[in-house]
Amino acid sequence: MLRTPVIEIADGLWLKLELLQHSGSFKVRGAFNRMLSAGELPESGVIAASGGNHGLAVAFAARALGARAEIFVPEVTSPVKVAGLAVLGAHITQTGAIYAEAAEAAAKRAAESGALMVHAYDQPEVVAGQGTTGLELMEQTGGVDTVLAAVGGGGFAAGITVGTSAGEGGGPRIVAVEPERIPTLHAARRAGEPVPVEVSGVAADALGASRVGGLAFEILSGDRVESVLVTDEAIVAARRTLWERHRVVAEHSGAAAYAALLSGVYTPAPGERVAVVVCGSNTDPATLTTD
Amino acid sequence: MLRTPVIEIADGLWLKLELLQHSGSFKVRGAFNRMLSAGELPESGVIAASGGNHGLAVAFAARALGARAEIFVPEVTSPVKVAGLAVLGAHITQTGAIYAEAAEAAAKRAAESGALMVHAYDQPEVVAGQGTTGLELMEQTGGVDTVLAAVGGGGFAAGITVGTSAGEGGGPRIVAVEPERIPTLHAARRAGEPVPVEVSGVAADALGASRVGGLAFEILSGDRVESVLVTDEAIVAARRTLWERHRVVAEHSGAAAYAALLSGVYTPAPGERVAVVVCGSNTDPATLTTD
Repeated sequence: MLRTPVIEIADGLWLKLELLQHSGSFKVRGAFNRMLSAGELPESGVIAASGGNHGLAVAFAARALGARAEIFVPEVTSPVKVAGLAVLGAHITQTGAIYAEAAEAAAKRAAESGALMVHAYDQPEVVAGQGTTGLELMEQTGGVDTVLAAVGGGGFAAGITVGTSAGEGGGPRIVAVEPERIPTLHAARRAGEPVPVEVSGVAADALGASRVGGLAFEILSGDRVESVLVTDEAIVAARRTLWERHRVVAEHSGAAAYAALLSGVYTPAPGERVAVVVCGSNTDPATLTTD
Repeated sequence: MLRTPVIEIADGLWLKLELLQHSGSFKVRGAFNRMLSAGELPESGVIAASGGNHGLAVAFAARALGARAEIFVPEVTSPVKVAGLAVLGAHITQTGAIYAEAAEAAAKRAAESGALMVHAYDQPEVVAGQGTTGLELMEQTGGVDTVLAAVGGGGFAAGITVGTSAGEGGGPRIVAVEPERIPTLHAARRAGEPVPVEVSGVAADALGASRVGGLAFEILSGDRVESVLVTDEAIVAARRTLWERHRVVAEHSGAAAYAALLSGVYTPAPGERVAVVVCGSNTDPATLTTD
């Protein structure tokens, strides 16, 4: 894994550039951790369902470890991600409209093949792996009061919550940011348990889980976590600003956390030290100026 | 200025992400240093000629310091850069085919207006400012044996040569990388003095000085400096690789130094610690996949 850099874009405001990570997103942290924790991998290798980023990460890690990778992606997955999977040598099945349907097909296939399932968010090793992002950013910034991170299945934000808990006072506030059109955590917090939601909008291929993970829900129900929603328009604007002002090319999901700050959905107090995780870049840069 | 991050993309190989700098290139380091060294700025403000990046930097610094900025750019300057200058509130004159012609017009105008000339590369304060990039990267990497940097007028590579000279043994080797189609340093080294060259190719709007600066030539004539050329094809390929493999969107000039490494024009010895400076990103990201 790369120790991805942080840049301080204003006094006390950092971007953690996790989009520069191998495979173009944080997902490789959890993928490696799950695969290395499993001991010897089966002959049939590893299998995963993914909107794209997790698949790319599993394919990347599998290639590094010399294992076979079989990846299930839904129709919503962007062409850039499917092309990336092919480059990494993964066996690709594109099936189902959204992530949940691809996940079902992958589970069925895993039962047949005996391949190791690397879940996109709902496994302890995956959550712990993603959490190293939080550990790093606390070291790199000298500590912050607040971390903003995007939520799909919730594994990333949950990992960061755990990974930053070592500090005094139990760690920073975690602002869990979801697109208004995929409010898995919001809905779960209201219902008291993970419930399915409709999946749509610009970030659907990366934050497109239909419900928050059980493990993530437990962790993200803690006192340190605040759950907020951002509009698709705010995500698009944040993505553009990341490029125009900071020369960072994020995919829509990668810009969601920053969107919460830019759109004023989350407003830091004076002097509050804030880190925003920009978590993915598997996108066609041409779309930056066209969408 | 930002302390721009480094990422270690392979064992002992760093990219210094100077393209994340304010105004999209290293130029702002020299611009600020020149303007702050001048004491109080004249009523007529500052003036500069530029292929684009230096103009953006001067306009950025002038805005920060509350000064008027007048920028002369040639026809070859990319629309992205002209648009950026307008956003920063600069007074823009687009004149002449290449940088040298815009520079002549700017010098004439400066003589009339009394504005402070901020030269794109041939002033000690500018060279010293750019050199802070070298200082930073030595600290951030724990020291390297070799630094690859692009050369147009030579101010950046010269600055880095000076900025890295504090170490033992006089500092690292500097590999000064030029496009084959704008070989200012190469030609000067052959002639024993700065001489004019033809200016063309993909990086002409950023490395398009017609001759290397006198100050830069002096510094870059030292024993530590090696001068190499890269083709336009190597630059285009390196720019694409920076995006596809490392999620870094550089302009052509910004990819030139990496091109020397990727194309094998410069081959490090086993164990050699190398830093490559990716120095600019003022580009239309859509062109990444089309050119």
